[in-house]
Amino acid sequence: MNTGKFLPLMLVPLAGLPAKNLLATDQRPNIILFMVDDMGWQDTSLPFWKEKTALNERYHTPHMERLAAQGMMFTQAYACSVSSPTRVSLMTGMNAARHHVTNWTLEKNKSTDRKSDVLEFPEWNVNGICQVPGIPHTYEVTSLTQLLKNSGYHTIHCGKAHWGAIDTPGENPHHFGFEVNIAGHAGGGVASYLGEENYGNRTDGTPSPHQAVPGLDKYWGTETFVTEALTREALKALDKAKNLGQPFYLYMSHYAIHIPIDRDKRFYQRYMDAGLSEKEAAYAALIEGMDKSLGDLMNWLEQNGLEDNTIVIFMSDNGGFSTDTRWRDAPLHTQNAPLNSGKGSAYEGGIREPMIVKWPGKVKPGTQCNQYVIIEDFFPTLLDMAQVKKRRTLQPIDGISFVPLLEGRSANNATRNLYWNYPNLWGNEGPGIGSTCTVRSGDWKLIYYYETGQKELFHLTEDIGETTNRAAQYPRLVRQLSQELGHFLRSAEAQRPLWKATGQPCPWPDER
Amino acid sequence: MNTGKFLPLMLVPLAGLPAKNLLATDQRPNIILFMVDDMGWQDTSLPFWKEKTALNERYHTPHMERLAAQGMMFTQAYACSVSSPTRVSLMTGMNAARHHVTNWTLEKNKSTDRKSDVLEFPEWNVNGICQVPGIPHTYEVTSLTQLLKNSGYHTIHCGKAHWGAIDTPGENPHHFGFEVNIAGHAGGGVASYLGEENYGNRTDGTPSPHQAVPGLDKYWGTETFVTEALTREALKALDKAKNLGQPFYLYMSHYAIHIPIDRDKRFYQRYMDAGLSEKEAAYAALIEGMDKSLGDLMNWLEQNGLEDNTIVIFMSDNGGFSTDTRWRDAPLHTQNAPLNSGKGSAYEGGIREPMIVKWPGKVKPGTQCNQYVIIEDFFPTLLDMAQVKKRRTLQPIDGISFVPLLEGRSANNATRNLYWNYPNLWGNEGPGIGSTCTVRSGDWKLIYYYETGQKELFHLTEDIGETTNRAAQYPRLVRQLSQELGHFLRSAEAQRPLWKATGQPCPWPDER
Repeated sequence: MNTGKFLPLMLVPLAGLPAKNLLATDQRPNIILFMVDDMGWQDTSLPFWKEKTALNERYHTPHMERLAAQGMMFTQAYACSVSSPTRVSLMTGMNAARHHVTNWTLEKNKSTDRKSDVLEFPEWNVNGICQVPGIPHTYEVTSLTQLLKNSGYHTIHCGKAHWGAIDTPGENPHHFGFEVNIAGHAGGGVASYLGEENYGNRTDGTPSPHQAVPGLDKYWGTETFVTEALTREALKALDKAKNLGQPFYLYMSHYAIHIPIDRDKRFYQRYMDAGLSEKEAAYAALIEGMDKSLGDLMNWLEQNGLEDNTIVIFMSDNGGFSTDTRWRDAPLHTQNAPLNSGKGSAYEGGIREPMIVKWPGKVKPGTQCNQYVIIEDFFPTLLDMAQVKKRRTLQPIDGISFVPLLEGRSANNATRNLYWNYPNLWGNEGPGIGSTCTVRSGDWKLIYYYETGQKELFHLTEDIGETTNRAAQYPRLVRQLSQELGHFLRSAEAQRPLWKATGQPCPWPDER
Repeated sequence: MNTGKFLPLMLVPLAGLPAKNLLATDQRPNIILFMVDDMGWQDTSLPFWKEKTALNERYHTPHMERLAAQGMMFTQAYACSVSSPTRVSLMTGMNAARHHVTNWTLEKNKSTDRKSDVLEFPEWNVNGICQVPGIPHTYEVTSLTQLLKNSGYHTIHCGKAHWGAIDTPGENPHHFGFEVNIAGHAGGGVASYLGEENYGNRTDGTPSPHQAVPGLDKYWGTETFVTEALTREALKALDKAKNLGQPFYLYMSHYAIHIPIDRDKRFYQRYMDAGLSEKEAAYAALIEGMDKSLGDLMNWLEQNGLEDNTIVIFMSDNGGFSTDTRWRDAPLHTQNAPLNSGKGSAYEGGIREPMIVKWPGKVKPGTQCNQYVIIEDFFPTLLDMAQVKKRRTLQPIDGISFVPLLEGRSANNATRNLYWNYPNLWGNEGPGIGSTCTVRSGDWKLIYYYETGQKELFHLTEDIGETTNRAAQYPRLVRQLSQELGHFLRSAEAQRPLWKATGQPCPWPDER
């Protein structure tokens, strides 16, 4: 560099520089989306219901409490009932009925639907989404991350990706505009959380399982739990990011708390001492390890003076796992109480999520929002937060920005309906688990089962556990909601199962 | 997946898919740009001059010969005299006079200019290029790779990047649209080629040197030369790429044959046996190791049936290193003979490069093109090859596509001038090394030295070694070329040094 010995003359060469070099550094807010896998609405010490539950008493998530004290809790935040549809809706702004990634993805051209004797499942997008044309069984999209990157954000992926099948373009987070990718790939789970087990990677020359975690080789053979390894790598990426002169978007997408429920030894004993079973102590420790990661990120922001210009959003991708005594204690389907059922279910236990938004200067600290929002709303919301002006996308956007809710400008969104479509069959069984489509409208929720034609109507405010089907009591409301649901599904070009016996498609909800 | 038991019905769900899912897979050609570092015009057994030289006899590059037999050799292909200007011109389509990354980059806000008692060097873009606004001492650009990615190419970086300084956005190839990054960063050289030395990375807790190669940890402690490690990783990336249903762009950017001239043991002994000194045997082995990598890539294309739809381009980024007896035998400045001088020089030894293009079905095999081209021409050429239609860029483009030359459609481009501007001072000394600007016009070349005002005029066809300055003999031609050069530099908003004594800028070439 010139050392400034001839200060007045320094202006001569500068005068030749293009004006854009004189622009100020980009001051838009940083954004951290802290996304947990398979975390239920009650898997926290922070009460999202009207009262503190036994599960809230069981778990310890002090950093979620800390975040909630600095931001706004959403008590009725929704995702899909399994991972890939949620991840894709987040990345694209589309409802799952439209993007057709309605079940979870892994292997190319292979469906993960459980076999049914009665139903034939549609040709859903088993390869997920991608960013280029011509890839079979995918939806070509303009991703949230690409738009953020194009607008000048430094984009960091850490953890679970799960947007496209193995050997398709969508398997690689870099393809969607992430500039850093830590451990993300086609897999939607972990083969092992344990550094001692190399996170599932084989070293004997045999092929590693599909869900072996990539990119964390340096922690192999150590006692570093994957949650901690991801956190350390994310902090390193942030240390780099803070020097770049760009706002950053960190998608901190934990593999926790998905099965296998491996023991996070840092926190396990506390729960054994509290009298939990080994399984439930391990589950609680998984949660606390995830919460510790949240705390580490919040500490980093404070230590680097970035807490006032960083938005932190907490979310999960579907309900808590509740369908197998291999991982959870009996009785099953109660692990998200007071909600009914869990992951994979159309009931609240499968889709209602713990959500918190901290946005210094915009969101009033320690507040709560009881309006409902759904995962595709994150797409326009994050673009609003990031002040992204160029938003042309290949796909239509179903989501609605909840920035007005965050700013307290909109008191009520209950005139809006939320929709789900799951024309598939998940691997496990339980209440509300089946081939379904669903509408939420104000206090009411209607679930339609493609196979049986059954309709269930619940009044969520009075019956959050969805124990009493009021369909017979309110036939006109059932008809009306069936029509709205059917109309939405057709307009979104949704898919539906076929009858194996006749080859005919199952009727839409308003067709019977 | 559905197994097709009900074949006639499979059409029902397919009918609901968007039409874009039915497009054919993208059939545009794959492109491999094989870029060597610091390779001189004569560092090969393939003769790029009218006769085979002693250097051609010394080196063994059978795969360059094989590539030339399948494509077109360019005998007058040019780059800049040091790395960063070349790399930036390639990535942006701009002449270095315009992008102001006129010397090599490494540390943020630090110039690498050698000190001069006489000249003060301009505020060139010491931080390189970047893809976002507001970063000091950079040029904000739309990169070649981003345009290729946007158009649907799968983009792979392997090896040396060198587009931006440490801790600036340009240091990371992912920021420019590369979806895969193998070992690329801010560094423009290698701390060590040797796996035994961990490619320069320290493991004792002390900081690694800036030019320690990142991302090849798995080869640490092995005998894998960095050229081989990069090749293996590139082949793995290609194995992945071939399944994605996208054309790929591989920027195979070797760290070889830049100093330090470490011994590639696989090839070293052959040259000792031939009677070369240890230094020169090591240099020759570095070259053959690089050539072996080219062969491995060509073999992969053949083994995977992709050789007919893959363009392979061979190029180097500046002349061969010839300025220090630490690395090369005396006499210095002869290592690129018959060209004068080497890396860092305005003479042909600093800027003329070995270049080959194989394009099956377009380029006639075994042909030679004697028209001149320059590195910024690669930008529009690769976009033409890739049939990229959306080419809006932040920067103006100086390069001209040489696709017509490849197709034999344009017999002569000698009416076009080529320009260089180097208002800097390189670290080493030698003929033609200084603060210069240069124009090539037909057979003639004029070099202007900012410090002394000296002008050198050479007739390249008659005097490729630039031994006879004909400036005094052709004053009108000198005046005309000085005007053309001065006009170009001003129109490109080029930079020039200042006189330390007076603070005044050095005159343009047509001002004295």
